[in-house]
Amino acid sequence: MESGHRIEAALDAAFARIETPAGPPKLAAAMRHAVFGAGQRIRPRLCLAVAMACGDDMPAATDSAAVAIEVLHCASLVHDDMPCFDNADIRRGKPTVHRVYGEPLAVLTGDALIVLAFQTLARGVVAAPERMGRLVDIVAAAIGAPAGLCAGQAWESEPEVDLAEYHRAKTGVLFAAATEAGGAAAGHPDPVAWRTLGAKLGEAYQVADDLRDVAADPERLGKPRGQDAALGRPNAVAELGVVGAITRLKALVGEAVGSIPPCPGREALQAHILDETGRFVPKELARQAA
Amino acid sequence: MESGHRIEAALDAAFARIETPAGPPKLAAAMRHAVFGAGQRIRPRLCLAVAMACGDDMPAATDSAAVAIEVLHCASLVHDDMPCFDNADIRRGKPTVHRVYGEPLAVLTGDALIVLAFQTLARGVVAAPERMGRLVDIVAAAIGAPAGLCAGQAWESEPEVDLAEYHRAKTGVLFAAATEAGGAAAGHPDPVAWRTLGAKLGEAYQVADDLRDVAADPERLGKPRGQDAALGRPNAVAELGVVGAITRLKALVGEAVGSIPPCPGREALQAHILDETGRFVPKELARQAA
Repeated sequence: MESGHRIEAALDAAFARIETPAGPPKLAAAMRHAVFGAGQRIRPRLCLAVAMACGDDMPAATDSAAVAIEVLHCASLVHDDMPCFDNADIRRGKPTVHRVYGEPLAVLTGDALIVLAFQTLARGVVAAPERMGRLVDIVAAAIGAPAGLCAGQAWESEPEVDLAEYHRAKTGVLFAAATEAGGAAAGHPDPVAWRTLGAKLGEAYQVADDLRDVAADPERLGKPRGQDAALGRPNAVAELGVVGAITRLKALVGEAVGSIPPCPGREALQAHILDETGRFVPKELARQAA
Repeated sequence: MESGHRIEAALDAAFARIETPAGPPKLAAAMRHAVFGAGQRIRPRLCLAVAMACGDDMPAATDSAAVAIEVLHCASLVHDDMPCFDNADIRRGKPTVHRVYGEPLAVLTGDALIVLAFQTLARGVVAAPERMGRLVDIVAAAIGAPAGLCAGQAWESEPEVDLAEYHRAKTGVLFAAATEAGGAAAGHPDPVAWRTLGAKLGEAYQVADDLRDVAADPERLGKPRGQDAALGRPNAVAELGVVGAITRLKALVGEAVGSIPPCPGREALQAHILDETGRFVPKELARQAA
Protein backbone atom coordinates (compact mmCIF):
# COMPACT_ATOMS: atom_id res chain seq x y z
CA MET A 1 0.00 0.00 0.00
CA GLU A 2 1.26 3.48 -0.83
CA SER A 3 2.26 5.11 2.44
CA GLY A 4 -0.25 7.97 2.14
CA HIS A 5 -3.12 5.50 1.83
CA ARG A 6 -1.69 3.36 4.58
CA ILE A 7 -1.67 6.32 6.97
CA GLU A 8 -5.23 7.35 6.14
CA ALA A 9 -6.38 3.75 6.59
CA ALA A 10 -4.62 3.54 9.98
CA LEU A 11 -6.14 6.85 11.08
CA ASP A 12 -9.58 5.66 10.00
CA ALA A 13 -9.12 2.43 11.96
CA ALA A 14 -8.14 4.40 15.07
CA PHE A 15 -11.20 6.63 14.69
CA ALA A 16 -13.51 3.65 14.16
CA ARG A 17 -12.89 2.64 17.76
CA ILE A 18 -14.00 6.02 19.13
CA GLU A 19 -16.78 6.86 16.66
CA THR A 20 -19.40 4.67 18.28
CA PRO A 21 -23.03 5.45 19.09
CA ALA A 22 -22.02 5.27 22.77
CA GLY A 23 -19.96 8.45 22.55
CA PRO A 24 -20.96 12.12 22.30
CA PRO A 25 -21.30 12.86 18.55
CA LYS A 26 -19.94 16.40 18.56
CA LEU A 27 -16.71 15.39 20.27
CA ALA A 28 -16.16 12.69 17.66
CA ALA A 29 -16.96 15.15 14.86
CA ALA A 30 -14.60 17.76 16.29
CA MET A 31 -11.81 15.19 16.58
CA ARG A 32 -12.37 14.19 12.95
CA HIS A 33 -12.41 17.86 11.91
CA ALA A 34 -9.02 18.30 13.60
CA VAL A 35 -7.35 15.28 12.03
CA PHE A 36 -8.79 14.79 8.54
CA GLY A 37 -8.48 17.27 5.70
CA ALA A 38 -5.55 19.05 4.18
CA GLY A 39 -2.80 17.83 6.52
CA GLN A 40 0.35 16.73 4.73
CA ARG A 41 1.04 13.82 7.11
CA ILE A 42 4.74 14.63 6.93
CA ARG A 43 5.52 13.25 10.40
CA PRO A 44 3.67 9.91 10.06
CA ARG A 45 5.11 9.43 6.55
CA LEU A 46 8.54 9.87 8.06
CA CYS A 47 7.73 7.42 10.84
CA LEU A 48 6.58 4.86 8.27
CA ALA A 49 9.61 5.40 6.05
CA VAL A 50 11.97 4.74 8.96
CA ALA A 51 10.08 1.62 10.04
CA MET A 52 10.15 0.31 6.47
CA ALA A 53 13.89 0.94 6.27
CA CYS A 54 14.22 -1.19 9.41
CA GLY A 55 12.17 -4.06 7.94
CA ASP A 56 8.68 -3.13 9.19
CA ASP A 57 8.32 -6.60 10.71
CA MET A 58 5.22 -5.65 12.67
CA PRO A 59 3.06 -3.37 10.51
CA ALA A 60 0.37 -2.90 13.18
CA ALA A 61 2.98 -1.45 15.53
CA THR A 62 4.29 0.83 12.78
CA ASP A 63 0.79 2.02 11.90
CA SER A 64 -0.05 2.76 15.52
CA ALA A 65 3.19 4.71 16.00
CA ALA A 66 2.46 6.78 12.88
CA VAL A 67 -1.11 7.44 14.03
CA ALA A 68 0.07 8.39 17.51
CA ILE A 69 2.53 10.95 16.13
CA GLU A 70 -0.06 12.49 13.79
CA VAL A 71 -2.90 12.78 16.31
CA LEU A 72 -0.54 14.37 18.84
CA HIS A 73 0.43 16.90 16.19
CA CYS A 74 -3.25 17.63 15.53
CA ALA A 75 -4.00 17.85 19.27
CA SER A 76 -1.30 20.48 19.72
CA LEU A 77 -2.70 22.49 16.79
CA VAL A 78 -6.22 22.46 18.28
CA HIS A 79 -5.03 23.80 21.63
CA ASP A 80 -2.50 26.23 20.10
CA ASP A 81 -5.25 27.75 17.93
CA MET A 82 -7.45 28.56 20.94
CA PRO A 83 -8.15 32.16 21.95
CA CYS A 84 -5.80 32.02 24.95
CA PHE A 85 -2.91 31.11 22.60
CA ASP A 86 -2.82 32.10 18.91
CA ASN A 87 -6.56 32.86 18.59
CA ALA A 88 -6.53 31.48 15.05
CA ASP A 89 -9.65 31.40 12.88
CA ILE A 90 -8.36 29.23 10.05
CA ARG A 91 -6.25 26.08 10.00
CA ARG A 92 -5.47 24.06 6.89
CA GLY A 93 -8.04 26.10 4.95
CA LYS A 94 -10.90 25.31 7.36
CA PRO A 95 -12.26 27.14 10.40
CA THR A 96 -10.45 26.06 13.56
CA VAL A 97 -12.07 23.62 15.97
CA HIS A 98 -13.01 26.22 18.58
CA ARG A 99 -14.60 28.41 15.87
CA VAL A 100 -16.82 25.55 14.72
CA TYR A 101 -17.47 23.68 17.98
CA GLY A 102 -16.75 26.24 20.70
CA GLU A 103 -14.00 26.46 23.31
CA PRO A 104 -15.17 23.68 25.64
CA LEU A 105 -15.14 21.10 22.85
CA ALA A 106 -11.80 22.44 21.60
CA VAL A 107 -10.24 21.76 25.01
CA LEU A 108 -11.79 18.29 25.10
CA THR A 109 -10.85 17.53 21.48
CA GLY A 110 -7.19 18.22 22.20
CA ASP A 111 -7.36 16.14 25.37
CA ALA A 112 -9.09 13.22 23.67
CA LEU A 113 -6.65 13.29 20.74
CA ILE A 114 -3.71 13.09 23.14
CA VAL A 115 -5.36 10.08 24.74
CA LEU A 116 -6.12 8.57 21.32
CA ALA A 117 -2.38 8.43 20.66
CA PHE A 118 -1.94 6.12 23.63
CA GLN A 119 -5.13 4.14 22.97
CA THR A 120 -3.83 3.44 19.49
CA LEU A 121 -0.44 2.31 20.78
CA ALA A 122 -2.04 0.08 23.42
CA ARG A 123 -4.02 -1.74 20.73
CA GLY A 124 -1.49 -1.72 17.90
CA VAL A 125 1.54 -2.87 19.81
CA VAL A 126 -0.19 -5.50 21.90
CA ALA A 127 1.44 -8.30 19.89
CA ALA A 128 4.88 -6.90 20.71
CA PRO A 129 4.66 -5.99 24.39
CA GLU A 130 8.42 -5.55 24.65
CA ARG A 131 8.17 -2.62 22.21
CA MET A 132 5.21 -1.02 23.95
CA GLY A 133 6.99 0.68 26.86
CA ARG A 134 9.55 2.26 24.59
CA LEU A 135 6.89 3.54 22.19
CA VAL A 136 4.67 4.94 24.93
CA ASP A 137 7.73 6.62 26.40
CA ILE A 138 8.81 8.16 23.06
CA VAL A 139 5.34 9.46 22.29
CA ALA A 140 4.76 10.78 25.82
CA ALA A 141 8.13 12.55 25.91
CA ALA A 142 7.30 14.24 22.61
CA ILE A 143 4.20 15.94 23.97
CA GLY A 144 4.56 16.20 27.77
CA ALA A 145 6.86 17.77 30.32
CA PRO A 146 9.72 18.57 30.64
CA ALA A 147 10.66 18.78 26.95
CA GLY A 148 7.71 17.90 24.69
CA LEU A 149 5.26 20.09 22.79
CA CYS A 150 3.34 21.20 25.91
CA ALA A 151 6.54 22.19 27.61
CA GLY A 152 7.63 24.01 24.46
CA GLN A 153 4.42 26.01 24.43
CA ALA A 154 4.76 26.69 28.17
CA TRP A 155 8.09 28.45 27.60
CA GLU A 156 6.02 31.31 26.15
CA SER A 157 4.78 31.95 29.70
CA GLU A 158 8.30 32.33 31.07
CA PRO A 159 9.82 35.80 31.47
CA GLU A 160 13.30 34.91 30.25
CA VAL A 161 13.70 32.56 27.34
CA ASP A 162 15.52 32.32 24.03
CA LEU A 163 12.35 32.26 21.91
CA ALA A 164 14.15 31.48 18.67
CA GLU A 165 15.79 28.45 20.23
CA TYR A 166 12.51 27.31 21.76
CA HIS A 167 10.63 27.51 18.46
CA ARG A 168 13.30 25.45 16.72
CA ALA A 169 13.10 22.88 19.52
CA LYS A 170 9.30 22.83 19.44
CA THR A 171 9.18 21.85 15.77
CA GLY A 172 12.05 19.43 16.08
CA VAL A 173 10.70 17.41 18.97
CA LEU A 174 7.84 15.74 17.08
CA PHE A 175 9.95 15.05 13.99
CA ALA A 176 12.60 13.43 16.19
CA ALA A 177 9.90 11.39 17.92
CA ALA A 178 8.53 10.31 14.52
CA THR A 179 11.84 8.82 13.44
CA GLU A 180 12.63 7.33 16.85
CA ALA A 181 9.15 5.78 17.02
CA GLY A 182 9.54 4.38 13.50
CA GLY A 183 12.72 2.64 14.57
CA ALA A 184 11.21 1.40 17.84
CA ALA A 185 8.05 0.10 16.14
CA ALA A 186 10.17 -2.00 13.79
CA GLY A 187 12.35 -3.33 16.60
CA HIS A 188 15.53 -1.41 15.75
CA PRO A 189 18.02 -2.12 18.55
CA ASP A 190 18.88 1.58 19.09
CA PRO A 191 15.90 3.81 18.22
CA VAL A 192 17.56 6.88 19.75
CA ALA A 193 20.08 6.77 16.90
CA TRP A 194 17.20 7.77 14.61
CA ARG A 195 16.49 11.07 16.37
CA THR A 196 19.05 13.17 14.47
CA LEU A 197 17.32 12.37 11.18
CA GLY A 198 14.02 13.68 12.53
CA ALA A 199 15.52 16.70 14.27
CA LYS A 200 17.36 17.84 11.12
CA LEU A 201 14.32 17.30 8.93
CA GLY A 202 12.19 19.24 11.41
CA GLU A 203 14.58 22.14 11.15
CA ALA A 204 14.60 21.86 7.34
CA TYR A 205 10.80 21.85 7.35
CA GLN A 206 10.77 25.07 9.34
CA VAL A 207 13.11 26.75 6.85
CA ALA A 208 10.91 25.46 4.01
CA ASP A 209 7.87 26.92 5.76
CA ASP A 210 9.53 30.34 5.77
CA LEU A 211 10.35 29.94 2.07
CA ARG A 212 6.78 28.94 1.22
CA ASP A 213 5.49 32.08 2.91
CA VAL A 214 7.77 34.19 0.73
CA ALA A 215 6.69 32.34 -2.42
CA ALA A 216 3.04 32.88 -1.49
CA ASP A 217 3.55 36.57 -0.85
CA PRO A 218 6.78 37.87 -2.43
CA GLU A 219 6.35 41.28 -0.86
CA ARG A 220 7.32 39.70 2.42
CA LEU A 221 10.71 38.80 0.96
CA GLY A 222 13.39 39.49 3.45
CA LYS A 223 11.02 40.98 5.99
CA PRO A 224 10.09 39.06 9.10
CA ARG A 225 6.42 38.17 9.18
CA GLY A 226 4.53 40.33 11.66
CA GLN A 227 3.46 37.43 13.84
CA ASP A 228 6.91 35.86 13.81
CA ALA A 229 8.50 39.09 14.98
CA ALA A 230 5.84 39.65 17.65
CA LEU A 231 6.21 36.11 18.99
CA GLY A 232 9.98 36.01 18.63
CA ARG A 233 9.79 33.19 16.09
CA PRO A 234 12.91 32.64 14.03
CA ASN A 235 12.57 33.24 10.30
CA ALA A 236 15.28 31.80 8.11
CA VAL A 237 14.44 34.01 5.13
CA ALA A 238 14.63 37.15 7.25
CA GLU A 239 17.93 36.00 8.71
CA LEU A 240 19.60 34.56 5.61
CA GLY A 241 17.68 35.80 2.54
CA VAL A 242 16.08 33.42 0.02
CA VAL A 243 19.32 32.03 -1.39
CA GLY A 244 20.84 31.65 2.07
CA ALA A 245 17.74 29.90 3.35
CA ILE A 246 17.74 27.45 0.42
CA THR A 247 21.42 26.73 1.05
CA ARG A 248 20.68 26.16 4.74
CA LEU A 249 17.77 23.86 3.88
CA LYS A 250 19.95 21.76 1.58
CA ALA A 251 22.65 21.53 4.24
CA LEU A 252 20.12 20.33 6.80
CA VAL A 253 18.77 17.69 4.41
CA GLY A 254 22.33 16.56 3.75
CA GLU A 255 23.02 16.24 7.47
CA ALA A 256 19.71 14.39 7.90
CA VAL A 257 20.46 11.89 5.15
CA GLY A 258 24.00 11.43 6.42
CA SER A 259 22.76 10.62 9.92
CA ILE A 260 20.69 7.59 8.91
CA PRO A 261 21.91 4.63 10.98
CA PRO A 262 22.87 1.34 9.33
CA CYS A 263 19.71 -0.58 8.42
CA PRO A 264 18.49 -2.88 5.63
CA GLY A 265 16.74 -0.11 3.68
CA ARG A 266 19.25 2.71 4.15
CA GLU A 267 19.66 3.60 0.47
CA ALA A 268 15.96 3.51 -0.30
CA LEU A 269 15.29 5.74 2.70
CA GLN A 270 17.92 8.23 1.60
CA ALA A 271 16.32 8.39 -1.86
CA HIS A 272 12.86 8.75 -0.29
CA ILE A 273 13.96 11.66 1.88
CA LEU A 274 15.70 13.48 -0.95
CA ASP A 275 12.53 13.05 -3.00
CA GLU A 276 10.23 14.33 -0.22
CA THR A 277 12.44 17.27 0.69
CA GLY A 278 12.95 18.12 -2.97
CA ARG A 279 9.36 19.37 -2.88
CA PHE A 280 10.09 21.55 0.17
CA VAL A 281 11.39 24.49 -1.90
CA PRO A 282 8.70 26.19 -4.02
CA LYS A 283 9.62 25.94 -7.72
CA GLU A 284 9.67 29.69 -8.35
CA LEU A 285 12.17 30.19 -5.58
CA ALA A 286 14.30 27.24 -6.62
CA ARG A 287 14.60 28.72 -10.12
CA GLN A 288 15.28 32.15 -8.71
CA ALA A 289 18.06 30.81 -6.50
CA ALA A 290 19.63 28.60 -9.18
CA MET B 1 4.53 1.54 53.93
CA GLU B 2 1.11 3.00 54.81
CA SER B 3 -0.78 3.42 51.56
CA GLY B 4 -1.16 7.20 51.90
CA HIS B 5 2.60 7.60 52.20
CA ARG B 6 3.17 5.14 49.41
CA ILE B 7 0.99 7.17 47.04
CA GLU B 8 2.66 10.48 47.91
CA ALA B 9 6.08 8.87 47.42
CA ALA B 10 5.02 7.48 44.04
CA LEU B 11 3.62 10.86 42.97
CA ASP B 12 6.84 12.54 44.08
CA ALA B 13 8.88 10.05 42.07
CA ALA B 14 6.76 10.71 38.97
CA PHE B 15 7.22 14.46 39.39
CA ALA B 16 10.96 14.12 39.91
CA ARG B 17 11.26 13.03 36.29
CA ILE B 18 9.53 16.14 34.98
CA GLU B 19 10.81 18.73 37.46
CA THR B 20 14.23 19.17 35.85
CA PRO B 21 16.10 22.38 35.05
CA ALA B 22 15.52 21.56 31.36
CA GLY B 23 11.78 22.20 31.60
CA PRO B 24 9.77 25.43 31.90
CA PRO B 25 9.51 26.14 35.67
CA LYS B 26 5.98 27.58 35.69
CA LEU B 27 4.51 24.53 33.96
CA ALA B 28 6.12 22.25 36.53
CA ALA B 29 4.89 24.49 39.36
CA ALA B 30 1.36 24.56 37.94
CA MET B 31 1.35 20.76 37.61
CA ARG B 32 2.48 20.45 41.24
CA HIS B 33 -0.18 22.97 42.30
CA ALA B 34 -2.82 20.80 40.62
CA VAL B 35 -1.73 17.50 42.15
CA PHE B 36 -0.36 18.17 45.63
CA GLY B 37 -2.37 19.61 48.50
CA ALA B 38 -5.65 18.67 50.02
CA GLY B 39 -6.64 15.84 47.64
CA GLN B 40 -7.98 12.79 49.44
CA ARG B 41 -6.35 10.32 47.01
CA ILE B 42 -9.45 8.14 47.18
CA ARG B 43 -9.00 6.68 43.68
CA PRO B 44 -5.30 5.74 43.98
CA ARG B 45 -5.91 4.33 47.48
CA LEU B 46 -8.58 2.14 45.98
CA CYS B 47 -6.26 1.09 43.16
CA LEU B 48 -3.59 0.16 45.70
CA ALA B 49 -6.03 -1.71 47.92
CA VAL B 50 -7.18 -3.87 44.99
CA ALA B 51 -3.61 -4.60 43.88
CA MET B 52 -2.68 -5.59 47.43
CA ALA B 53 -5.70 -7.89 47.64
CA CYS B 54 -4.37 -9.55 44.45
CA GLY B 55 -0.89 -10.05 45.89
CA ASP B 56 0.82 -6.83 44.67
CA ASP B 57 3.59 -8.91 43.11
CA MET B 58 5.01 -5.97 41.16
CA PRO B 59 4.81 -2.87 43.38
CA ALA B 60 6.29 -0.55 40.72
CA ALA B 61 3.43 -1.43 38.38
CA THR B 62 0.88 -0.86 41.15
CA ASP B 63 2.41 2.49 42.06
CA SER B 64 2.42 3.67 38.46
CA ALA B 65 -1.22 2.63 37.99
CA ALA B 66 -2.22 4.55 41.13
CA VAL B 67 -0.26 7.62 40.01
CA ALA B 68 -1.79 7.45 36.53
CA ILE B 69 -5.33 7.38 37.94
CA GLU B 70 -4.69 10.29 40.31
CA VAL B 71 -2.97 12.60 37.82
CA LEU B 72 -5.76 11.99 35.28
CA HIS B 73 -8.26 12.96 37.95
CA CYS B 74 -6.28 16.15 38.65
CA ALA B 75 -5.95 16.89 34.91
CA SER B 76 -9.70 16.72 34.48
CA LEU B 77 -10.21 19.08 37.44
CA VAL B 78 -7.79 21.66 35.98
CA HIS B 79 -9.60 21.73 32.64
CA ASP B 80 -13.10 21.52 34.18
CA ASP B 81 -12.33 24.53 36.39
CA MET B 82 -11.44 26.73 33.39
CA PRO B 83 -13.60 29.70 32.43
CA CYS B 84 -15.14 27.94 29.42
CA PHE B 85 -16.40 25.16 31.73
CA ASP B 86 -17.14 25.73 35.45
CA ASN B 87 -15.15 28.99 35.79
CA ALA B 88 -14.15 27.99 39.32
CA ASP B 89 -11.96 30.19 41.51
CA ILE B 90 -11.23 27.74 44.31
CA ARG B 91 -10.37 24.04 44.30
CA ARG B 92 -9.40 22.04 47.38
CA GLY B 93 -9.13 25.30 49.36
CA LYS B 94 -6.63 26.88 46.96
CA PRO B 95 -7.05 29.16 43.94
CA THR B 96 -7.52 27.14 40.76
CA VAL B 97 -4.64 26.69 38.32
CA HIS B 98 -5.92 29.19 35.76
CA ARG B 99 -6.42 31.81 38.50
CA VAL B 100 -2.81 31.48 39.62
CA TYR B 101 -1.02 30.70 36.35
CA GLY B 102 -3.40 31.95 33.64
CA GLU B 103 -5.44 30.12 31.04
CA PRO B 104 -2.63 29.11 28.68
CA LEU B 105 -0.75 27.31 31.44
CA ALA B 106 -3.99 25.75 32.68
CA VAL B 107 -4.58 24.19 29.26
CA LEU B 108 -0.98 22.96 29.13
CA THR B 109 -1.05 21.71 32.74
CA GLY B 110 -4.05 19.51 32.01
CA ASP B 111 -2.43 18.25 28.82
CA ALA B 112 0.89 17.51 30.48
CA LEU B 113 -0.81 15.75 33.41
CA ILE B 114 -2.69 13.48 30.99
CA VAL B 115 0.64 12.66 29.36
CA LEU B 116 2.28 12.15 32.77
CA ALA B 117 -0.16 9.30 33.41
CA PHE B 118 1.23 7.44 30.41
CA GLN B 119 4.85 8.42 31.05
CA THR B 120 4.49 6.95 34.52
CA LEU B 121 2.99 3.72 33.20
CA ALA B 122 5.70 3.40 30.55
CA ARG B 123 8.40 3.56 33.22
CA GLY B 124 6.68 1.71 36.03
CA VAL B 125 5.43 -1.29 34.09
CA VAL B 126 8.53 -1.78 31.98
CA ALA B 127 9.49 -4.91 33.94
CA ALA B 128 6.10 -6.48 33.11
CA PRO B 129 5.55 -5.65 29.45
CA GLU B 130 2.66 -8.08 29.17
CA ARG B 131 0.70 -5.93 31.66
CA MET B 132 1.57 -2.65 29.94
CA GLY B 133 -0.92 -2.76 27.05
CA ARG B 134 -3.82 -3.59 29.33
CA LEU B 135 -2.93 -0.80 31.77
CA VAL B 136 -2.44 1.83 29.05
CA ASP B 137 -5.77 0.74 27.60
CA ILE B 138 -7.60 0.97 30.94
CA VAL B 139 -6.19 4.38 31.75
CA ALA B 140 -6.78 5.75 28.24
CA ALA B 141 -10.37 4.49 28.15
CA ALA B 142 -11.03 6.21 31.47
CA ILE B 143 -10.15 9.66 30.15
CA GLY B 144 -10.61 9.60 26.36
CA ALA B 145 -13.36 9.01 23.80
CA PRO B 146 -15.88 7.47 23.49
CA ALA B 147 -16.67 6.90 27.18
CA GLY B 148 -13.99 8.43 29.42
CA LEU B 149 -13.91 11.69 31.37
CA CYS B 150 -13.43 13.89 28.28
CA ALA B 151 -16.35 12.24 26.56
CA GLY B 152 -18.41 12.65 29.74
CA GLN B 153 -17.67 16.35 29.81
CA ALA B 154 -18.43 16.60 26.08
CA TRP B 155 -21.97 15.37 26.65
CA GLU B 156 -22.65 18.82 28.15
CA SER B 157 -22.30 20.20 24.60
CA GLU B 158 -24.98 17.89 23.23
CA PRO B 159 -28.56 19.13 22.87
CA GLU B 160 -30.27 15.96 24.07
CA VAL B 161 -28.78 14.05 26.95
CA ASP B 162 -29.85 12.51 30.23
CA LEU B 163 -27.65 14.75 32.37
CA ALA B 164 -28.29 12.87 35.60
CA GLU B 165 -27.18 9.62 34.00
CA TYR B 166 -24.15 11.29 32.47
CA HIS B 167 -22.97 12.77 35.77
CA ARG B 168 -23.27 9.39 37.46
CA ALA B 169 -21.26 7.83 34.66
CA LYS B 170 -18.65 10.56 34.76
CA THR B 171 -17.84 9.96 38.40
CA GLY B 172 -18.02 6.20 38.06
CA VAL B 173 -15.63 5.83 35.15
CA LEU B 174 -12.46 6.77 37.02
CA PHE B 175 -13.38 4.72 40.10
CA ALA B 176 -14.01 1.70 37.86
CA ALA B 177 -10.67 2.30 36.13
CA ALA B 178 -8.95 2.53 39.52
CA THR B 179 -10.11 -0.92 40.57
CA GLU B 180 -9.58 -2.47 37.13
CA ALA B 181 -6.06 -1.00 36.97
CA GLY B 182 -5.29 -2.27 40.46
CA GLY B 183 -6.18 -5.77 39.33
CA ALA B 184 -4.28 -5.47 36.07
CA ALA B 185 -1.17 -4.07 37.77
CA ALA B 186 -1.06 -7.08 40.09
CA GLY B 187 -1.58 -9.55 37.26
CA HIS B 188 -5.15 -10.58 38.12
CA PRO B 189 -6.36 -12.84 35.28
CA ASP B 190 -9.65 -10.95 34.80
CA PRO B 191 -9.23 -7.26 35.71
CA VAL B 192 -12.63 -6.37 34.21
CA ALA B 193 -14.24 -8.32 37.04
CA TRP B 194 -13.00 -5.57 39.36
CA ARG B 195 -14.93 -2.76 37.65
CA THR B 196 -18.20 -3.22 39.56
CA LEU B 197 -16.41 -2.55 42.85
CA GLY B 198 -15.13 0.79 41.53
CA ALA B 199 -18.36 1.78 39.83
CA LYS B 200 -20.43 1.16 42.97
CA LEU B 201 -17.95 2.99 45.18
CA GLY B 202 -17.94 5.89 42.73
CA GLU B 203 -21.67 6.13 43.01
CA ALA B 204 -21.45 5.88 46.81
CA TYR B 205 -18.85 8.64 46.82
CA GLN B 206 -21.19 10.88 44.87
CA VAL B 207 -23.99 10.30 47.38
CA ALA B 208 -21.53 10.98 50.20
CA ASP B 209 -20.54 14.23 48.48
CA ASP B 210 -24.15 15.36 48.52
CA LEU B 211 -24.40 14.43 52.20
CA ARG B 212 -21.21 16.35 53.04
CA ASP B 213 -22.63 19.45 51.41
CA VAL B 214 -25.70 19.22 53.61
CA ALA B 215 -23.57 18.69 56.71
CA ALA B 216 -21.47 21.73 55.81
CA ASP B 217 -24.53 23.89 55.23
CA PRO B 218 -27.66 22.42 56.84
CA GLU B 219 -29.88 25.10 55.33
CA ARG B 220 -29.42 23.33 52.00
CA LEU B 221 -31.10 20.26 53.46
CA GLY B 222 -33.41 18.79 50.94
CA LYS B 223 -32.90 21.55 48.44
CA PRO B 224 -30.92 20.96 45.30
CA ARG B 225 -27.74 23.02 45.18
CA GLY B 226 -28.05 25.90 42.75
CA GLN B 227 -25.24 24.71 40.53
CA ASP B 228 -26.50 21.13 40.55
CA ALA B 229 -29.91 22.19 39.42
CA ALA B 230 -28.53 24.52 36.76
CA LEU B 231 -26.23 21.85 35.36
CA GLY B 232 -28.72 19.02 35.74
CA ARG B 233 -26.51 17.20 38.22
CA PRO B 234 -28.22 14.55 40.27
CA ASN B 235 -28.39 15.17 44.00
CA ALA B 236 -29.16 12.19 46.19
CA VAL B 237 -30.19 14.29 49.19
CA ALA B 238 -32.62 16.32 47.11
CA GLU B 239 -34.06 13.14 45.63
CA LEU B 240 -34.10 10.90 48.71
CA GLY B 241 -33.67 13.12 51.78
CA VAL B 242 -30.83 12.63 54.30
CA VAL B 243 -32.03 9.30 55.67
CA GLY B 244 -32.82 7.96 52.23
CA ALA B 245 -29.44 9.04 50.93
CA ILE B 246 -27.62 7.34 53.82
CA THR B 247 -29.61 4.16 53.17
CA ARG B 248 -28.72 4.35 49.47
CA LEU B 249 -25.06 4.90 50.30
CA LYS B 250 -24.99 1.85 52.57
CA ALA B 251 -26.69 -0.26 49.92
CA LEU B 252 -24.11 0.79 47.33
CA VAL B 253 -21.24 -0.04 49.68
CA GLY B 254 -22.83 -3.42 50.32
CA GLU B 255 -23.10 -4.10 46.59
CA ALA B 256 -19.50 -2.95 46.14
CA VAL B 257 -18.16 -5.23 48.87
CA GLY B 258 -20.24 -8.13 47.59
CA SER B 259 -18.83 -7.74 44.07
CA ILE B 260 -15.20 -8.29 45.04
CA PRO B 261 -13.88 -11.18 42.93
CA PRO B 262 -12.13 -14.15 44.54
CA CYS B 263 -8.56 -13.17 45.46
CA PRO B 264 -6.03 -13.89 48.20
CA GLY B 265 -6.85 -10.74 50.19
CA ARG B 266 -10.62 -10.63 49.74
CA GLU B 267 -11.53 -10.38 53.44
CA ALA B 268 -8.92 -7.75 54.21
CA LEU B 269 -10.11 -5.70 51.24
CA GLN B 270 -13.73 -5.92 52.37
CA ALA B 271 -12.72 -4.68 55.82
CA HIS B 272 -10.63 -1.90 54.28
CA ILE B 273 -13.53 -0.69 52.15
CA LEU B 274 -16.01 -0.76 55.01
CA ASP B 275 -13.51 1.24 57.05
CA GLU B 276 -12.90 3.83 54.29
CA THR B 277 -16.56 4.24 53.42
CA GLY B 278 -17.51 4.40 57.09
CA ARG B 279 -15.98 7.87 57.03
CA PHE B 280 -18.09 8.88 54.01
CA VAL B 281 -21.11 9.90 56.11
CA PRO B 282 -20.48 12.99 58.24
CA LYS B 283 -20.88 12.13 61.96
CA GLU B 284 -23.64 14.65 62.63
CA LEU B 285 -25.76 13.20 59.87
CA ALA B 286 -25.04 9.60 60.85
CA ARG B 287 -26.28 10.36 64.39
CA GLN B 288 -29.29 12.19 63.04
CA ALA B 289 -30.21 9.27 60.80
CA ALA B 290 -29.64 6.56 63.42
